[in-house]
Amino acid sequence: MAALTRESCVALDRIDSLARFRERFNLPAGVIYLDGNSLGALGDDIPRRLAITIEREWGEGLIRSWNSAGWIDLPRKVAAKLAPLIGASPLDVAVSDSTSVNLFKLVIAGLRMRPGRRRVLSDASNFPTDLYIAGSAAKLLGAELEILAPEDLLRSLDADTAIVMLTQVDFKTGALHDLARITEAAHTRGALMLWDLSHSAGALPIDLAGADADFAVGCTYKYLNGGPGAPAFVYVAARLHAALESPLAGWMGHARPFDFEPAYAPASGIDRLLCGTPPVLSLAALDAALDLWAQVDLAEVRAKSVALSELFIALVEDRCAGFGLVLASPRRAAERGSQLSFRHAESYAIKQALIARGVIGDFRAPDLLRVGFTPLYLRYADIWDAVEALAGVLFSREWDAPAFRKREIVT
Amino acid sequence: MAALTRESCVALDRIDSLARFRERFNLPAGVIYLDGNSLGALGDDIPRRLAITIEREWGEGLIRSWNSAGWIDLPRKVAAKLAPLIGASPLDVAVSDSTSVNLFKLVIAGLRMRPGRRRVLSDASNFPTDLYIAGSAAKLLGAELEILAPEDLLRSLDADTAIVMLTQVDFKTGALHDLARITEAAHTRGALMLWDLSHSAGALPIDLAGADADFAVGCTYKYLNGGPGAPAFVYVAARLHAALESPLAGWMGHARPFDFEPAYAPASGIDRLLCGTPPVLSLAALDAALDLWAQVDLAEVRAKSVALSELFIALVEDRCAGFGLVLASPRRAAERGSQLSFRHAESYAIKQALIARGVIGDFRAPDLLRVGFTPLYLRYADIWDAVEALAGVLFSREWDAPAFRKREIVT
Repeated sequence: MAALTRESCVALDRIDSLARFRERFNLPAGVIYLDGNSLGALGDDIPRRLAITIEREWGEGLIRSWNSAGWIDLPRKVAAKLAPLIGASPLDVAVSDSTSVNLFKLVIAGLRMRPGRRRVLSDASNFPTDLYIAGSAAKLLGAELEILAPEDLLRSLDADTAIVMLTQVDFKTGALHDLARITEAAHTRGALMLWDLSHSAGALPIDLAGADADFAVGCTYKYLNGGPGAPAFVYVAARLHAALESPLAGWMGHARPFDFEPAYAPASGIDRLLCGTPPVLSLAALDAALDLWAQVDLAEVRAKSVALSELFIALVEDRCAGFGLVLASPRRAAERGSQLSFRHAESYAIKQALIARGVIGDFRAPDLLRVGFTPLYLRYADIWDAVEALAGVLFSREWDAPAFRKREIVT
Repeated sequence: MAALTRESCVALDRIDSLARFRERFNLPAGVIYLDGNSLGALGDDIPRRLAITIEREWGEGLIRSWNSAGWIDLPRKVAAKLAPLIGASPLDVAVSDSTSVNLFKLVIAGLRMRPGRRRVLSDASNFPTDLYIAGSAAKLLGAELEILAPEDLLRSLDADTAIVMLTQVDFKTGALHDLARITEAAHTRGALMLWDLSHSAGALPIDLAGADADFAVGCTYKYLNGGPGAPAFVYVAARLHAALESPLAGWMGHARPFDFEPAYAPASGIDRLLCGTPPVLSLAALDAALDLWAQVDLAEVRAKSVALSELFIALVEDRCAGFGLVLASPRRAAERGSQLSFRHAESYAIKQALIARGVIGDFRAPDLLRVGFTPLYLRYADIWDAVEALAGVLFSREWDAPAFRKREIVT
């Protein structure tokens, strides 16, 4: 590591095949953004596209835009752009509601597909809203969510297990689950496998069809850059569509919504998971954000993500040694998603001090400093500069100021 | 009516106390918009506000904007602006998800508040998505939705009735239910009353608290002008908060979402009905749209809505007589919301021919021509011109062209 210099990082940027994408984002000056895993950056085309949606489509077109601007087809159009990024057929993906609401639909639908089975299994490191939602959904059908230690999950599978539910990349540690292997394990006991891809979609290649996964959900405002609170996606394997019943039988999931029939008749296929009127403005931003991805090779994204992460670890080990930062993520790159976490008793204050220096990461309770790597707009030199800032914050105890300890609502 | 002229309409506009609001909307030239009951017009401040949200808050602020731009409090801020428009305390209103999803939360919550009771009653004229959702929700708890004829609803109330669910203004005919009287009737049998205000909020004064209503939901993209697919609202009377349990226990409804606790602990009060991450862009448009309403007197809105509707009926009777249009709305203004429907076998083609003349109404299957009155941006002279266009379309049989019969997806 002795030979690693900022100049060598700049040299890596010069030969980076993804470097051209950086100019496609409107990034603020003076900021190194290591939180694209939480909220992706603004694509350069989005302000113009939203202005068209607002001023021309809403303002001028008014109600006519449901037809003339294609608003009514927008959920399907966006789903078709998203599907290849998760290894799915466009016919198996819908874009609708939030990740939480979509998860609810699938837990209920899955329990109905496995009548008599009463267990929904997840692990303690899953994202909390997944656990809350699965718990409240299971309760409605007299089933039960069991939250197990990660190492106990697969051995707990039995003939009473209806659904196994995991987030592919652990939001705290960045640990990456083996999607194909765990799906297969669930299937051997007749359980349905439900993946939350919120922390992996757009960060690494995903092959839902290849893994024969049953269900997936995920958010689009992290690596996919869809904008704050952008609509979420939901995936159901085609072989399950015939038995698929949404507990949220809204009119957009009806076979003929504009016939206004009093009886519900589900749309064919995945569209029956649509529910209410879609949030057109948020959906239009996502639509614009996804256009960029048609040009992106996720294998290149993954390779650069690994390289940036490895560089970050090496530089921290080299330049921040002795300050108490402990890597909380798996050390092997193949076992991680596109983020790293470090334990430190003062992680919150350190994160705030870093933000004051223009290096934006985040904090996850109780003691994790978390940084995410988004290869479309991060440079190797940014990693160098970020770790330099971190070393500076630690060396000078810059974090040890009341202003940096004051907790904000969102951490 | 013989004395009514376009000049007298222009004179009415000159003394209209709401006339000043028209310039606060970006309306397309050459259009008379009689569909604000379906999608409200674009407020003049919204493009600028959304540009700030997109470029400054998302683009520059990035993840920091959850705190610095107040995104995390936006649902509460918007709910507080909306609450006075429906006669509610801000503490009893949340803004979240779609109307369909919110209705689902309340049907499940209501059934749990009335254990042992198994009937959910509604009437056949309710908006279809309400019936679909209530049916799928009731089924989850072994209860049943019964869709009755309007005249049979109240006499069917019994000790097994958990919830009575109605839309205050009938989307097809514009018929207005008596909110206070029906709420009281439901209460006498111990049932909970659930109102859908989608077709009344922003069209007339509503007093949920005065009527002691239990539950309400509603959409914000019609009379409230929140933008296509804007987030919906949900209301629960304070006396029911302690027993209120959401079936969609998402993280935004948790007491401490950023503690990431594995166990769900509901937020106090109405906030427990929040669910996933809010769609910030759509919510920001709604926030901007609601600012106008602080200056609006809903009694004035109602008075002008009645005057515009009465004028429309009078002019149709005078100028379109003999062409087969039959009023499908109550003839008494006090029994209507802010829309009118006319039956005609060729309603769809007539509506398309009117749009070609710049007069935008809509069609509701099987045979209704529907026009809505939005007093903030409609003029008396617009009504004159709209009926003139209608008379022209009917007189010349302009509607009788293949192009006007071709059905679009959204009608």
